[in-house]
Amino acid sequence: MDGEIIRKRSRAVRERLKEKKLDCLIVTKPANVSYMTGFLGDDSWALIGGRFAYLLTDSRYTEQATKECPHCKIVERKGPMSETAASLMGKLRSVRTAGVEDSTSVAVFRALRKNIGMRVRAVAGIVEAVREIKDSSEVAAIRAAGRIAAEAFEKSRRFIEAGVTENQLAGVLDLEIRKLGASNSFPTIVAFGANGSRPHHQPGKRRLKRNDCVLIDFGVKHKGYCCDLSRCFEMGRAGALYKRAYEAVVKSQLAAIEAIRAGAQIQQVDAAAKRVIAEYSFPIYGHGTGHGLGLEVHEMPVVAKNRKGKLKAGQVITVEPGVYIPGKLGIRIEDDVLVTETGCKLLSGNC
Amino acid sequence: MDGEIIRKRSRAVRERLKEKKLDCLIVTKPANVSYMTGFLGDDSWALIGGRFAYLLTDSRYTEQATKECPHCKIVERKGPMSETAASLMGKLRSVRTAGVEDSTSVAVFRALRKNIGMRVRAVAGIVEAVREIKDSSEVAAIRAAGRIAAEAFEKSRRFIEAGVTENQLAGVLDLEIRKLGASNSFPTIVAFGANGSRPHHQPGKRRLKRNDCVLIDFGVKHKGYCCDLSRCFEMGRAGALYKRAYEAVVKSQLAAIEAIRAGAQIQQVDAAAKRVIAEYSFPIYGHGTGHGLGLEVHEMPVVAKNRKGKLKAGQVITVEPGVYIPGKLGIRIEDDVLVTETGCKLLSGNC
Repeated sequence: MDGEIIRKRSRAVRERLKEKKLDCLIVTKPANVSYMTGFLGDDSWALIGGRFAYLLTDSRYTEQATKECPHCKIVERKGPMSETAASLMGKLRSVRTAGVEDSTSVAVFRALRKNIGMRVRAVAGIVEAVREIKDSSEVAAIRAAGRIAAEAFEKSRRFIEAGVTENQLAGVLDLEIRKLGASNSFPTIVAFGANGSRPHHQPGKRRLKRNDCVLIDFGVKHKGYCCDLSRCFEMGRAGALYKRAYEAVVKSQLAAIEAIRAGAQIQQVDAAAKRVIAEYSFPIYGHGTGHGLGLEVHEMPVVAKNRKGKLKAGQVITVEPGVYIPGKLGIRIEDDVLVTETGCKLLSGNC
Repeated sequence: MDGEIIRKRSRAVRERLKEKKLDCLIVTKPANVSYMTGFLGDDSWALIGGRFAYLLTDSRYTEQATKECPHCKIVERKGPMSETAASLMGKLRSVRTAGVEDSTSVAVFRALRKNIGMRVRAVAGIVEAVREIKDSSEVAAIRAAGRIAAEAFEKSRRFIEAGVTENQLAGVLDLEIRKLGASNSFPTIVAFGANGSRPHHQPGKRRLKRNDCVLIDFGVKHKGYCCDLSRCFEMGRAGALYKRAYEAVVKSQLAAIEAIRAGAQIQQVDAAAKRVIAEYSFPIYGHGTGHGLGLEVHEMPVVAKNRKGKLKAGQVITVEPGVYIPGKLGIRIEDDVLVTETGCKLLSGNC
């Protein structure tokens, strides 16, 4: 990754460490490690301080780390991670106090406390707060993931015919994503007919009928970055209720998108989408209207009722209203947008 | 799940709680929640005590939980999990002290300590220790996963031809697994030629040549239980070195399997496999010879050098020696076995 990007992120983290009177941060959450170092492998930590950025990994990943993290010092561990971190910190004279991400397990936190002879305390959300605003390289990666998603979706369309099972269709879509050199950002949801009314439905043996409806919620991970899309459509004639509900969801999504811009109240974006659903007299969906995404498929901010705060330029969020009528149908339309000063830009592919 | 099985597991956990002078255990690790309740969904906790077993979940999973956990009381949470757990424990008069799994994050552990007005402490490995010995229903599920893996592997064989990429072949195998109604127990590894020498290679664009070699390491999850297999073979003529290395790995695996039985020293099983590799003058593989598996693809015990302890009847472990020669080839053969009093039984499918 670009050295200037890494340095900018490090500076932002260091400022937050200073406020908390900490000399360094032990980064254990995989997405945060990727963000601070560029490393996309597993089982590794980062150590970020005033004038240093280390990646702690093991022999399986040394080759990959050398390639992906030209701007970090790479430490190949032999023993447990907490001992490696302790021994490294013992050598860094400028370090007296250390923060550890509070997503770390109690077991690992205790091992760190035992091994590191200095003040160690758990801290929340330092890297996450920096990650919330995406830079141009991140926006480009999310947009590229969206393009791959659209292409894979178009290629799997020909398998959408009466008789196919939810499970088969999910498998075909996943294969197309893989053929394009990418992977899933989460397990693909395919729901036919009334199954669509369960937002977390797992694809099963249900076969598509001649007159039926389809809900697909899927995402692609590309260069570490996620997109998250939902598409719904009818096979043959799904009926008048379906048409009306679909129209409501389309208009609801448009209303949310119109409300999005830097400075907009988050809960008002949620309310704008839900108002349209209410106008159509459909039940209001129980989930939020959107969520941030980036290195993880769920990040800050959460766009839902009771969520205080304003949108900021550079945030990337999903917009995903729905109509769910148990036993009858489920419709959700989901796209990803970049929040800008004047509105938002669509990042999810055209499909 | 069978009520008798659940009661047996609860009794085993309760005995361990008693030793630690704890009245109940807050189970937060997903595989442990599944084990103690039968629930296979996400985002849920279990609360296990002297005379009760609760599942704490949310409205998305209530229907699934009612079906999967007839022997638990189900609590549908509205607020944060730690508050729900605290409020429930406040109502349980017999509970004065609680253990929390130490795989829980520091953030959640702190929220629990804040919310629960009683002694709460983090404890290690209570459910894991019970899970180490599999009952007959678990062995049957792992065996069924092995059969599905073998069938999917056989079905994807016809795609193994010159020109296919690692990524395409991995995708085809995953699709076959999916068509059989199962899922991957971990991301499929397909490595052609010298790529096989990196045990954690990610499938890429490398195409299979006419004279080449193939390494596939994959697993199936069925009814929550995992299998884990590796298969290697040559396309056309891979050369004399390949043949010799393959022979070494086959014999190494057989030597390990012969050493396995209840009471055998774990490190001697590892040594038996590695002795054969040394006899062939190939470099000794850096990983262990095997690991436990069940609800997770990596469980206790670890079969490696420096691992003290003996094998126990009812453990299910992989046996996976290899030969890795960087820049040239990588071979690993992996099967899953059930440890018995007199030896072991093969659980992975015939492929």
